[in-house]
Amino acid sequence: MRICIVGCGAVGSLFAANLAGLDDVEVWAFDLNRAHVDAINKNGLQLTGAGEAHGRLHATSDAAELPQCDFGIVATKAMHAEAAITMTAHAFRDGAVASVMNGIGNEETIAAQVERVIRGTTFPAGKILEPGVVQWDVKGDTSLGPFEPQPARADEIAALADACTRAGMPTHAVADARPAQWRKVIFNSATNPIGALTGLTHGRVCEDKALRALVSGLVNEGKAVVAEQGIVLDMDPEELIDRSSQPDQAYGHKASMLQDIEARRPTEIDYLNGGIARFGRDLGVPTPLNDAVTALIKGAENSWI
Amino acid sequence: MRICIVGCGAVGSLFAANLAGLDDVEVWAFDLNRAHVDAINKNGLQLTGAGEAHGRLHATSDAAELPQCDFGIVATKAMHAEAAITMTAHAFRDGAVASVMNGIGNEETIAAQVERVIRGTTFPAGKILEPGVVQWDVKGDTSLGPFEPQPARADEIAALADACTRAGMPTHAVADARPAQWRKVIFNSATNPIGALTGLTHGRVCEDKALRALVSGLVNEGKAVVAEQGIVLDMDPEELIDRSSQPDQAYGHKASMLQDIEARRPTEIDYLNGGIARFGRDLGVPTPLNDAVTALIKGAENSWI
Repeated sequence: MRICIVGCGAVGSLFAANLAGLDDVEVWAFDLNRAHVDAINKNGLQLTGAGEAHGRLHATSDAAELPQCDFGIVATKAMHAEAAITMTAHAFRDGAVASVMNGIGNEETIAAQVERVIRGTTFPAGKILEPGVVQWDVKGDTSLGPFEPQPARADEIAALADACTRAGMPTHAVADARPAQWRKVIFNSATNPIGALTGLTHGRVCEDKALRALVSGLVNEGKAVVAEQGIVLDMDPEELIDRSSQPDQAYGHKASMLQDIEARRPTEIDYLNGGIARFGRDLGVPTPLNDAVTALIKGAENSWI
Repeated sequence: MRICIVGCGAVGSLFAANLAGLDDVEVWAFDLNRAHVDAINKNGLQLTGAGEAHGRLHATSDAAELPQCDFGIVATKAMHAEAAITMTAHAFRDGAVASVMNGIGNEETIAAQVERVIRGTTFPAGKILEPGVVQWDVKGDTSLGPFEPQPARADEIAALADACTRAGMPTHAVADARPAQWRKVIFNSATNPIGALTGLTHGRVCEDKALRALVSGLVNEGKAVVAEQGIVLDMDPEELIDRSSQPDQAYGHKASMLQDIEARRPTEIDYLNGGIARFGRDLGVPTPLNDAVTALIKGAENSWI
C-alpha cells in the first residue's frame, strides 16, 4: 500500500514516521518546507517525546515526483488545504484521501479535487524541533469515516485505519465520523485560542477557574450548534479537556494556535471558532463567546500587519 | 491653594504640569518613581503632544515632606490607591481628596483614610516618554462630584474644578458624578482590554467590524449593570467610542492596558471589566463577555509568572 502524507508538519510527521515503520506500506511525504524534506531524505524522520520512531520515507517538495498512491492523508494547516490538494490531486486518481486537519470544512475542499474522501479526526499533537526531527507532545486516537457526499469505500477506510493502528497510531474506522470531528473542533475551539490569547499552556488554562469557566462557555455554544444538526457527540468535550489537562497528558503543551501567535503565523481560527460561529449563524444558534474569541484572534493576527 | 497630585504617572503629570501654570496654585507631586521625581525637581515637568506645557512644581517620593494641602488628586493605578493614600493621608487632614483613577471602587479606598472625598472621572490620557517628560495623547474633560457617603463640600468641588479648568484641563463640578464615572468605566472596559489582547490601537480596534461588535457587546452588558442601579448615563459610551476613534482623536493611542501588557505590568482589569462583572453578580445582571475578557487578561498576567 502506498500512502502520501500531504503536509508533513508536526501532525503529518507523526503519521509519516510511524507508517514508515510498516513493511507493507510505502510512505511519501509532500511538503514545501525544503529543509525538512531534505533532512528527511538524508537522515530519515525522527520522532521524540511521547513516542519514539525513526522512519525512512520519500519526501519531496515537487508534486510532479509523486507516484500514484492508494491513500492521501492531508495534514496541512486548514488554510493551506486548497493549495496543497490542488498541487497533489493527480497522485490520487485511483486513491482515497483523508483529512486529519483541524476544524470543519476541510473535506469539502479536498472533495473539489478528489473523488473519494475520508472524514478524519486526529488527536495527537507535536511540534517540529528542527528539520527532520519532530517532538511528539500528545498521543491520541484517530477516527476515519466516509465524507458523506463523496465517500471512500468502507474497505478502504478500514485498510487505512488498520495500517495506522499497526503503525502505532490507534485509529478507528467509523460509519459516522462527524461526532468525533465536532468533539475535536469543540475541544480545540474551547482551549486553543485561550492559550493563544493568554500565553498559557493547556494545563494552566484548565487550572485557572475563570478561564476554565470561559472554556465551558465556549464548549456549551459548540454543543448547541452540534445538537441543532442532530449530531450526537461520542464523548463530552469537557471530559476530554479535563483528561488532557493532567500532568501526564497535555498539561505543558502549548496549543498550536499559541505556537502560531508566538511565531506571528496565521492561525486556524476561521476553521475552529470561526467555523462554529458560521454554523451557528446558519442554524440560528447564538455563539457570542466564539464570535468574541474569533474577533480577538483575528485582531491579534492583524496587529502584525 | 495647595494641591498634591498623588501618583504622578501619565495622567497625574497632565494635572500636575497644567496646574503648576496657575499663579494661585502651589503644586506638589508624590510619586515613588525617583527618576521621574528627580527630573521634575531639576528641570520641571514637560508635556508634549496634544497639548504643550512646562510646569515647575515640588515633587517627592517621601510622603513626610508633603505640607498640608487643600486638595489631593489621586492618579495612581487603581491597585496602588490603597498604599498611596495610606502614605499620604496625613497631608489632607483639612483637605478634600479626589480620585481620577480608572474604574470603580477607588473612592471607597480613599474614604477609608480621608474625611472628605471627591468622585472624579477624567478622560485625558498619555504616557511617560522619559523622566520628567510626558506625552499628552488624548485631551478630554474631567468631572468632579461628591462621593456620596463622605462628600467634599460643594464649594470645594467647585474650587478644584475651576482651578483645573483655568489650567487647561476642562473640568465640570457636578452634583452626581456617577454617570460620568460609569460612562468612562464602560468606555475603558469595552475598549482597553480589546487593545491589550490584540495589540491593536484604539482606532484599529474600532474599524474592525468583528471587534467593534465585541466592543458593543461589552458596552451593552455595562449599560445593563448601570440601568439596574437606577443611574442614567450622561452620554452613550458608544458615541464616545466612535468619536474617540477618529484620526484626530485617540486613533493611534495604545490603551494603557496594552502598554501594561507589553511592559508585563499588572493591569487595572479588576477595577474595569472585573468591577462591572462584580456589580453584575451582586445585581443579578449577567456579564459573560466581561467575565471572559477579565479571565483572559488575568490569564495573560499569570503567563509571565
